[in-house]
Amino acid sequence: MPDATPIDAREDQLGSVVYDANGLVPAIVQDRASGEVLMMAWCNEKTLRMTLEEGRTVFWSRSRQEVWRKGDTSGERQWLRSASYDCDGDTLLFVVDQEGGGACHTGARSCFFRAFGVDDTATT
Amino acid sequence: MPDATPIDAREDQLGSVVYDANGLVPAIVQDRASGEVLMMAWCNEKTLRMTLEEGRTVFWSRSRQEVWRKGDTSGERQWLRSASYDCDGDTLLFVVDQEGGGACHTGARSCFFRAFGVDDTATT
Repeated sequence: MPDATPIDAREDQLGSVVYDANGLVPAIVQDRASGEVLMMAWCNEKTLRMTLEEGRTVFWSRSRQEVWRKGDTSGERQWLRSASYDCDGDTLLFVVDQEGGGACHTGARSCFFRAFGVDDTATT
Repeated sequence: MPDATPIDAREDQLGSVVYDANGLVPAIVQDRASGEVLMMAWCNEKTLRMTLEEGRTVFWSRSRQEVWRKGDTSGERQWLRSASYDCDGDTLLFVVDQEGGGACHTGARSCFFRAFGVDDTATT
């Protein structure tokens, strides 16, 4: 696994992305092998370009107000395999190979480990 | 397929959801059978409760500023099979059985049908 495969996006594709009032767009991260939705985070235009050029996910941390190169601290890097934008351009989907134990800061593989309902352990 | 299976969420689970300044939380919708990410939309507290109680996705339309019971017009309803919230409570994941042709208003199965790169047809 760990290897970076940059994606050479066209400017018209990058120009189709719609940012919110804070200059951010939500990015869903999905595991390539399992299809599991791992997490959602936010990109600005700069970190979207970094993600595509570096071939690994780079977000904008809203809490720290800084570039967040996922896994630089934890080792749990996400190697980009494809990147899509939705019909109205305001959401991104990154399909990745997840390195390390998982995407979540809790140690869970996916951040979505709590389900609504009586049995609150998510099965997805 | 089409059948509603309500989810009986606990109040402490519902209370774990964090809404943004507009009272909204993003909801990722994933197809149960294929694992495909179909779309992302937004819920407020009312439409999250409606989704769980009715067993089908109900969103808040930001453009129309009204309750959006997905599929009432198009027939492309989404039958809820599980619903999760992430580690910090600010994103939802709905796993659904998608009725009809797809989730996207363009007729595509998934809203994420455009990929960055030379070949801009998404494969996920």
